[in-house]
Formats: sequence, structure tokens, C-alpha cells
Amino acid sequence: MPNIKLTLGYDGTGYHGFQLQKNAVTVQQKLEEAIEKVMGQKVRITASGRTDTGVHATGQVINFFAQTGIPPQRIPHALNAVLPRDIVIYAAEIVSDSFHARFDAVGKTYTYTIDNGAHPQVLSRHHAYHVRFPLDANLMKQAAATLQGKHDFTSFMASGSSVKTTVRNLYRLDVEINWPYITITAAADGFLYNMVRIIAGTLIEVGRGKRDHNLGPVIDAKNRHRAGWTVPAHGLVLREVEYNKK
Amino acid sequence: MPNIKLTLGYDGTGYHGFQLQKNAVTVQQKLEEAIEKVMGQKVRITASGRTDTGVHATGQVINFFAQTGIPPQRIPHALNAVLPRDIVIYAAEIVSDSFHARFDAVGKTYTYTIDNGAHPQVLSRHHAYHVRFPLDANLMKQAAATLQGKHDFTSFMASGSSVKTTVRNLYRLDVEINWPYITITAAADGFLYNMVRIIAGTLIEVGRGKRDHNLGPVIDAKNRHRAGWTVPAHGLVLREVEYNKK
Repeated sequence: MPNIKLTLGYDGTGYHGFQLQKNAVTVQQKLEEAIEKVMGQKVRITASGRTDTGVHATGQVINFFAQTGIPPQRIPHALNAVLPRDIVIYAAEIVSDSFHARFDAVGKTYTYTIDNGAHPQVLSRHHAYHVRFPLDANLMKQAAATLQGKHDFTSFMASGSSVKTTVRNLYRLDVEINWPYITITAAADGFLYNMVRIIAGTLIEVGRGKRDHNLGPVIDAKNRHRAGWTVPAHGLVLREVEYNKK
Repeated sequence: MPNIKLTLGYDGTGYHGFQLQKNAVTVQQKLEEAIEKVMGQKVRITASGRTDTGVHATGQVINFFAQTGIPPQRIPHALNAVLPRDIVIYAAEIVSDSFHARFDAVGKTYTYTIDNGAHPQVLSRHHAYHVRFPLDANLMKQAAATLQGKHDFTSFMASGSSVKTTVRNLYRLDVEINWPYITITAAADGFLYNMVRIIAGTLIEVGRGKRDHNLGPVIDAKNRHRAGWTVPAHGLVLREVEYNKK
């Protein structure tokens, strides 16, 4: 049975996150229902990772095994025809049987968008976090530079999370201004739970002048209490998942 | 009683247009309710113009007369606190008694956004019209240049509309590409009913190679049937209304 890889986007506003849950509508549930409708078989999908309630994606990756006569290039259209409009399949391909969307991911890119106008931009209210206090984006850039690289990011992980290692290579952390938006782009070999949202909260505190822009000591403390707060989910978008394997 | 001018935005997705209607929720109704709640008096607002169901605004202008102790610079915050989140007040000022949001408007700018990717960009699905057939934006630019200027735009007006004059000065008609988006920006001294949506529909037909890029003959025909179809409302945003008077 072929192993099918899908690249997809979703607006997380209407979902209780990605992963299947009893008594709550999730993206995974809608995807599995659509695949069953189109391919006539029940499947269990594997994602590159779950996303929390309210988090969006434009480049999530999943895989699943299914028998289908639909050629891969037609699969996005076939699924989009039955999916709700807030979930869109962008690409499909047949990959090797050993391909696993989670275990084989070698890098992920997220963006976190801040709307820093005096009043919220109405058309992006579900996809940007409104911060009305003026932020100094140059200070935020300097602070981002001190976080970039391979570090133990314990200070930037939701407390209570359990993982094998808390070391991650944050190989890109950019702060870009396109007024009134400030967009933080974070790319790493992997992220700890809530890591991007805690980084964003910490950078916002720097931008407000409430903490020093050298975040080296915060990394070194390996203590969640030393970093900033966890900003709301709705500014976060999973943009891309990278793989070496096909 | 002071004459208060407000600049505001709204996401038209959830409204039956701007103007008051019986048995349908409109932006005007929400605004008048909010003003009554905050200023303790019933008012009737005047807008620069109505917008249709599903059309958005980031720079709509209204005025109304009301007695209030709230200083103008605090009015946006006070109203935003009681308005639904899909309507946002950006600015307020006291203007002369003779200022009229509709009669004194000397120019308006609209954008119409096309999403020309193979599949719709999920996060902009309510604010961009998805056209899956590849469009030649350079042909659309050439066509736009033939529409720009002062013309009788009868061919680009919804049939059955009644107006004093069908001559408008379309002083700007730009087509910009920011893949996968193609954005049409139209600025004029005024617009006929559905004019931007008919222009967008006509430019899309040019971009698909289905009609000549010289639209001069279409203008000259003064016949609605000679122009393209009326594209859906959700790609349209009222960006700015200009005034000379204060």
C-alpha cells in the first residue's frame, strides 16, 4: 500500500488543535474523514507534530498508507473538494515506505506575527497578536541574535514538559518589520513545547524595554521562570517542515 | 453638538453589508449600538458610502453628531471596547458642522486581491478571491493602463443602477504581483455600483487570454454586456476615503 505524503495548511481558529480528541473538533479528524470519503478506507495519519488550539499552518506535513487509484497530482483537488474551507491540501506525493512525517523531520520553520498598531488591524485579527505598546524592533533583533544557535533551551520550554534532550539548534531567528507588523521567524532542527511562543513573549518584553536584550543569561539559567510569558496561540503559523528522506 | 468623524475598518464576512437593514446584521447597526452604549444617546451615522455584503474596509469614514465628554483621542478605545472584534475604530476627530462623510468625499481607494495559487491560501480565504487558472499579470497591467483616466464607465456599472453621471476619473489603476497574490488598486473621484468588481472581472479575463488587453473599445461601447463578469465581494477592501474639508 503506497505511503502518501501531504503538505497542507489550516486556519486553527475553529479547531481544538491538530491531534484527535474525544468531544472536540480537530484538524486530524477532518483530514481522516476526508481521506476516508475520497479513498474509501479508514486511515490513521501521522503529522510532523501536533499544533495547539488556535495555531495555524501553511506547511504542515502528514503521511499515511492508503490504496488509491487517484494519481498523486490529483489528490489535493480531490481532498480539497470534500474538506472544510479552513483546511487546504497543497501537495501530495508517494514516498518510500519508511518515510515518517515526525521521525524524519530535520527542520521546522514557524512565524509569530505581532500587530503593533495602536488598534488591531481588523483583517488579520485571527493571525496576528495585537500589542498596543510600541515595541523597539531593533532591540528585539539584537535580542534574537543572542538566542540563535545551538543551546539548551530549558528556559524556553513549558514547565512540566518531558523530552529526551532540551538542546536544540535554533539556526534562524529573524525579526522583520513591515509596519504595523513585526514578524518573528524561527527555524530549528526541532522545537520544545511552547518554545516559539515563549521566545516571542521574551522578545516582546525586550521590545518594551522591560528586560535586557542580552538573553545569554536567560539561556544559561535553564529555568522557565527567567524567560518571558507565553504569548497567545493565534499569532503562530507552522510554515515549513524539512526532510532529507523522500 | 459636535460633529464626530471616525475612520474605521471591518471584516465584512459576518455582515449583510454596511447599511441598516431589517432582519439582517449590518455594520451600521453595530456602530450605532456601540455609540449609544458609550455616549448614551441614539445617533444616525452617515458613511462615505455603503459597502455590499462580504466587502471589507480598512479605511471607511463615517460622521455623526453627539454630545460626549470623551476626548476625541480616547473615542477609538472607548468604542472598540464595546464593538465586536470584526469592527475596529482607528481614529476620531471633531470636524466642522458642515462636514458630510458622503457628500464631501473627493476620492476613494479600493483594492481587489486575487489569490492565483493552484490551491487557495488558507489564511486569506475570506479576503482574496481564488483563481486557479494562471493569470498573465503583465497583460492585466497593460489592460489596466487603458482604463485609467476620466471616462464614461457605463460598461463597468451594474445594469439598472441610476446615477446623475456615469463619468468618473479613475486616476489610479495598478496591478501588483506578490505571488501568489495579484492586487488591483483602484482610486477614483467616485465609483459606480460594482465598478471595481466588474473591472477586476474584466482584467481577469484579459489575464486568462480570453479578451484583448486594449479595453478602450469596451469603454466606448457604454454597454455593460461588453465588460467582464462581477467578481465575488470578498476580495474587495475599501482602503481610504479622501476629503479636502475638515
